[in-house]
Amino acid sequence: MALIVQKYGGTSMGSVERIEHVASKVASFIARGDRVVVVVSAMSGETDRLLKLAKSINPRGNQREFDQIAATGEQVTIGLLALALEKQGLKSRSYTGPQVAIRTDSAHMKARIQSIDADKLLADCAAGIVPVVAGFQGIDATGSVTTLGRGGSDTTGVALAAALKADECQIYTDVDGVYTTDPRVEPKARRLDRITFEEMLEMASLGSKVLQIRSVEFAGKYKVPLRVLSTFVEGPGTLITLDEETKVEDPLISGIAFNRDEAQLTVEGVPDRPGIAAAILGPIGDANIEIDMIVQNVAADATTDFTFTVNRVDYDRALEVAKKVAAELGAKGVRSALDIVKVSLVGVGMRSHAGIASQMFKALAAEGINIRMISTSEIKISVVISDKYLELAVRTLHKAFGLEGATA
Amino acid sequence: MALIVQKYGGTSMGSVERIEHVASKVASFIARGDRVVVVVSAMSGETDRLLKLAKSINPRGNQREFDQIAATGEQVTIGLLALALEKQGLKSRSYTGPQVAIRTDSAHMKARIQSIDADKLLADCAAGIVPVVAGFQGIDATGSVTTLGRGGSDTTGVALAAALKADECQIYTDVDGVYTTDPRVEPKARRLDRITFEEMLEMASLGSKVLQIRSVEFAGKYKVPLRVLSTFVEGPGTLITLDEETKVEDPLISGIAFNRDEAQLTVEGVPDRPGIAAAILGPIGDANIEIDMIVQNVAADATTDFTFTVNRVDYDRALEVAKKVAAELGAKGVRSALDIVKVSLVGVGMRSHAGIASQMFKALAAEGINIRMISTSEIKISVVISDKYLELAVRTLHKAFGLEGATA
Repeated sequence: MALIVQKYGGTSMGSVERIEHVASKVASFIARGDRVVVVVSAMSGETDRLLKLAKSINPRGNQREFDQIAATGEQVTIGLLALALEKQGLKSRSYTGPQVAIRTDSAHMKARIQSIDADKLLADCAAGIVPVVAGFQGIDATGSVTTLGRGGSDTTGVALAAALKADECQIYTDVDGVYTTDPRVEPKARRLDRITFEEMLEMASLGSKVLQIRSVEFAGKYKVPLRVLSTFVEGPGTLITLDEETKVEDPLISGIAFNRDEAQLTVEGVPDRPGIAAAILGPIGDANIEIDMIVQNVAADATTDFTFTVNRVDYDRALEVAKKVAAELGAKGVRSALDIVKVSLVGVGMRSHAGIASQMFKALAAEGINIRMISTSEIKISVVISDKYLELAVRTLHKAFGLEGATA
Repeated sequence: MALIVQKYGGTSMGSVERIEHVASKVASFIARGDRVVVVVSAMSGETDRLLKLAKSINPRGNQREFDQIAATGEQVTIGLLALALEKQGLKSRSYTGPQVAIRTDSAHMKARIQSIDADKLLADCAAGIVPVVAGFQGIDATGSVTTLGRGGSDTTGVALAAALKADECQIYTDVDGVYTTDPRVEPKARRLDRITFEEMLEMASLGSKVLQIRSVEFAGKYKVPLRVLSTFVEGPGTLITLDEETKVEDPLISGIAFNRDEAQLTVEGVPDRPGIAAAILGPIGDANIEIDMIVQNVAADATTDFTFTVNRVDYDRALEVAKKVAAELGAKGVRSALDIVKVSLVGVGMRSHAGIASQMFKALAAEGINIRMISTSEIKISVVISDKYLELAVRTLHKAFGLEGATA
């Protein structure tokens, strides 16, 4: 007799057959006595098609109109799913974001949810009606349609779950949970039964793109239990929980994330004086290039080497800026590398356990893998290594930290 | 400095290029100082595509959901046109039916407009913003999206013009006006500069499908000057005006309409007594068959022949019912014909002029065309003839009533 918010993504809404499959899944929850509020995305590819059409007319047009157009994608799928639920013998009612109402600010194409009227949806549930709500969209104070930006339907699901005080927010996708690492790199990768919000954030930002980061932040902030499951394969998925619920016997490390999209730049022999980091990174930021890792070593002489990583798409521009800055600062020069990869251990357990880092470095050294760069946070240790060692490093660490064991 | 409502149909919205063409047309009106409110349909074929998709899931599903889905067609085109107007250097803002708000009853898929908030649109016009409003849709008292039924965008245009007290409602389509008859049948057919609402209703219901009938009724009721023009060809189009504005020198006959879709049934030798019409037509109506013309002649003996026409798609069913009724009434039998066509003269002038009917019959007789059935109204005379004479009859009447002359 739980109240559950279920969010189904674009792949799950991709065809008439898939929509009917989702309807039968929802019906099975209703049959066992749960109350369900459904949130859906547009059919896969539809939002892109609509935005492309809009841009073909006026690429720099008023974003209010882009939202007006893009929001139709979910308006179609909510109607279709309501019809499919009706065919399953259920009562159902579709709602656009404005109809709920999901109120947002007026930042078109990246709006933030401000409030949700939960009463109508709760009344529907009480009356045995399954509400189907459009993800990704809302309404601003002037009555204009807004959208939440890419992956915003996850955020809609979590926000609805928070507003309804739901027992769980289930995010249905095409993978059956969060894994210890990418199964394509380590076939022994194992689905996690649970992971904390913080770990999930680190995993997501490091390239395990299962959930939109903002929705995880939101779920953590409002303490909404979040579960990632597959639409197509039965199973319990992965539950994303609050940190305080982790137990002593929980594993130290939850997973191994990696990122192949980075490039490394080192400004060598920079005079070591206050303000040098800002002098180097300021112009990079001014060029609208995002920086990921930053490492600075104190050298024996009065100079230092300053290393950072950027996304590979920004590599050429970043190199150009770095060379200019190096010349201005009187540095020795700029070294750079594209053949690198970042590998990260993630786990809240490392907060209370010493020695994780050295265990990691030892395991890598035993395989002859040279570490080029190290960066740590409270629940994550990242190393940059040569990209040819990616698979070897992931498998080595997966084994060293016992991630192949029985389900946690 | 007029206030004009312009409605563009699905063909005018059919591609990016056409939408840009519409934007440039609107811009030319703004440039000359007019204020313009635009109403648009969905891209041609889009409403059908959406409804087909919905029906593929649940053909007898809740019509509320069909409306939710179908309404997205116009929501896309309003956004696209607003973007195209912006590219023309204009300020523009799109509105869905609910956003305007166009309030309707809750009769989904055939809703009727109850009220429109004109203030927002007038404020936009005053601020130099061109509002682009979705045709075909509205919102009911519960906040659900409704649609007005086929051709409903014309009705939206007229209703907006009435609410805004606009100087004119211009309906842009793929023909450049209303013609004296179908140019495919009579190449000398001529565009009318003006026609009355009543004449337009007769022309429309007789098969000249330029405007949705309901929108013409609405325009007549609220005295909204209505103009039919082509999106693609420059020209003044045809103005549809109030009867009282017709002048003495206006022609007697405005046009010749025809209808190829009818079939004729005659119940012969029916005992001539009160209630006989109801006895015959009641069962036809009960079978949900619409009847067009009805003619009954008093015969020399105590029997009468009762003739009526139905749409050809209902012919088989109508014949079956008629035979059953004939047997019950003790009539002689049922005669029927599919090879017929109805040709009608339409003109408010005939109200004040005698002799039009006999002039029509003489002209047809001179060409050896036999009249099978006659029906008259205040502003129309219809005859049923053999379908092989259609072209000959139309051209003969077109010439006999001077419709080939200079533009009225």
